[in-house]
Amino acid sequence: MTKVSMAHGAGGRSMQRLLRERVLPHLLTDKGEVPLSALDDSGVIDDIVMTTDSHTVKPLFFPGGDIGSLSVAGTVNDISVMGATPIALSLAMVIEEGMEADDLEKIARSIGRTANKAGVPIITGDTKVVERGAVDKLILNTSAFGKRSPALDANLAIVAKHRTIHSRWLEDRNVADGDVIIVSGTLGDHGVAILSARKGYGFDADVVSDIAPLNGMIVRALAVGGIAAMKDPTRGGLANTLNEFSEKSKVGIEIEEEKIPIRQAVRSACNLLGIDPLEIGNEGKAVMAVVPGKADDVLAALRATPEGREAAIIGKAMKSVRGVVMRTRVGGRRIVEAPIADPVPRIC
Amino acid sequence: MTKVSMAHGAGGRSMQRLLRERVLPHLLTDKGEVPLSALDDSGVIDDIVMTTDSHTVKPLFFPGGDIGSLSVAGTVNDISVMGATPIALSLAMVIEEGMEADDLEKIARSIGRTANKAGVPIITGDTKVVERGAVDKLILNTSAFGKRSPALDANLAIVAKHRTIHSRWLEDRNVADGDVIIVSGTLGDHGVAILSARKGYGFDADVVSDIAPLNGMIVRALAVGGIAAMKDPTRGGLANTLNEFSEKSKVGIEIEEEKIPIRQAVRSACNLLGIDPLEIGNEGKAVMAVVPGKADDVLAALRATPEGREAAIIGKAMKSVRGVVMRTRVGGRRIVEAPIADPVPRIC
Repeated sequence: MTKVSMAHGAGGRSMQRLLRERVLPHLLTDKGEVPLSALDDSGVIDDIVMTTDSHTVKPLFFPGGDIGSLSVAGTVNDISVMGATPIALSLAMVIEEGMEADDLEKIARSIGRTANKAGVPIITGDTKVVERGAVDKLILNTSAFGKRSPALDANLAIVAKHRTIHSRWLEDRNVADGDVIIVSGTLGDHGVAILSARKGYGFDADVVSDIAPLNGMIVRALAVGGIAAMKDPTRGGLANTLNEFSEKSKVGIEIEEEKIPIRQAVRSACNLLGIDPLEIGNEGKAVMAVVPGKADDVLAALRATPEGREAAIIGKAMKSVRGVVMRTRVGGRRIVEAPIADPVPRIC
Repeated sequence: MTKVSMAHGAGGRSMQRLLRERVLPHLLTDKGEVPLSALDDSGVIDDIVMTTDSHTVKPLFFPGGDIGSLSVAGTVNDISVMGATPIALSLAMVIEEGMEADDLEKIARSIGRTANKAGVPIITGDTKVVERGAVDKLILNTSAFGKRSPALDANLAIVAKHRTIHSRWLEDRNVADGDVIIVSGTLGDHGVAILSARKGYGFDADVVSDIAPLNGMIVRALAVGGIAAMKDPTRGGLANTLNEFSEKSKVGIEIEEEKIPIRQAVRSACNLLGIDPLEIGNEGKAVMAVVPGKADDVLAALRATPEGREAAIIGKAMKSVRGVVMRTRVGGRRIVEAPIADPVPRIC
């Protein structure tokens, strides 16, 4: 009999196969404007956007954040990248018996601080305590719903000047030939911060997680207009995000290695560990596909925000390309595949 | 330092204290029409009702259901008992490495069947796989949002003929002197079904879980009108539900033991194990407080539904009573307290 393996949880191809073969066929996957079968950041029905995330990060505390800030920011971002305004969060905690109440309180404080920063209240919750060994200290689930962002219609109207659009939301399937690919900042910080907090890795990178709620930054970018698709490159990193764009939109994407913003400390840590920085998760970044005429303005709007200071144009969608390809520093071309398994498990 | 104990997860007083002292002070608890601080079944903001539940039931499969049907029904019910129509569900799975894919598929089938029965689609999801030992096989989180039920305004208008009402939803704090307490069927079935599925209990009760989505039944009851408050008696059972009504509404409740529907097999199992059937959880029942003139009609409407066939009037709210009191079969009076700890842990 098949058993679920760690690779099935990595957000890449193995997981997609497990879901498509064993889980999705039994669910009502075609309901809603953005249904479950889209496997997008959020679902949409009745003009309400909804998302959910369970967090099992290890360790619970790490440079730049903890499981609490991670949960809230990740969930706020999943709503925001659809082009919606997050309205409320839920918080469900599964706590291992014996957890220090002080640690729980520290995490609660971080949850509150992040929710406050995002301006999104937690309006409902659930608490379970399980016997020792039944979970690894703490699992959090945050879910959220959001409503259509006031700027979204005007934003999409600009996209519609260039081509026919098939969705009222910033879905992964909206990317088209010529769209400019923008990342809102440096890549790999979160994954490396988690690794540096784990014992036994023999390096002490000066890297902190990029955890941040991005709803404020995204509103500014939407106000400029011309954004066709947006996604936060969490599990599977930029490599996974661009492959989702490419597969769902049926268009190739070419990026340039030298334009991708990566901190030197992240690059060094990845070299040391043999990890591809494009494949590790981020928790405070967005990747956008923008119509060519608006790319510079969107970039400028992003750079004017604290979260988007290091935003960069890294490439474009091209129908002449198959899949996702990177032009390397030395002038070669490398195929960027969606990671099959997670180079760094349990980073979120 | 204080450590979290199993008692903190039981849905009773210990849990409330942990949340009120360590968690809630750090969150924005006053946002929304029914805010987090209400600790009701769901929260309400912008006329949207939201709820969340993480499920850690052990074992995963038991007579009458499994973790999948349990999750979906429980979440649908939390939305419905507020007086809302559930619109969509999210599903987040945390899977232990090594879980049989066949078991996962069986659970997915059960999730789909229950969602289909309730008529509520799953529109978004999340999957994490953790290493062996980091969770006990599988934890599911289901969250949901709902919209105001079309029958709710007319229902509350009938309540408003009798008194001033302070809420637009069926909140726990709406119970008033004279309200009739109705349960929609037999109590204790779920908790005893879980126990009978666990090894080593030395009894083989002929009891199946009552898991059922109640949105259909509740719509029928709302159409009659006069329902002031409603709650599903899950963790902590009827005892906890009535104490929540009593405390939040600042009114006493008197119930009659002989009127409380409990199956003989459940009663026997509870006697054998020294468990109070009023303190164990149910997953397909609702408890309602109804204005006196409408109680018989609501009861009749409930009994006309498959889920409410064994509905019964069990008592009433009385300002002359303090807390929750039960008139026993032998003519005595017993105080019914909210359980401090869970007599049967991990039943949901």
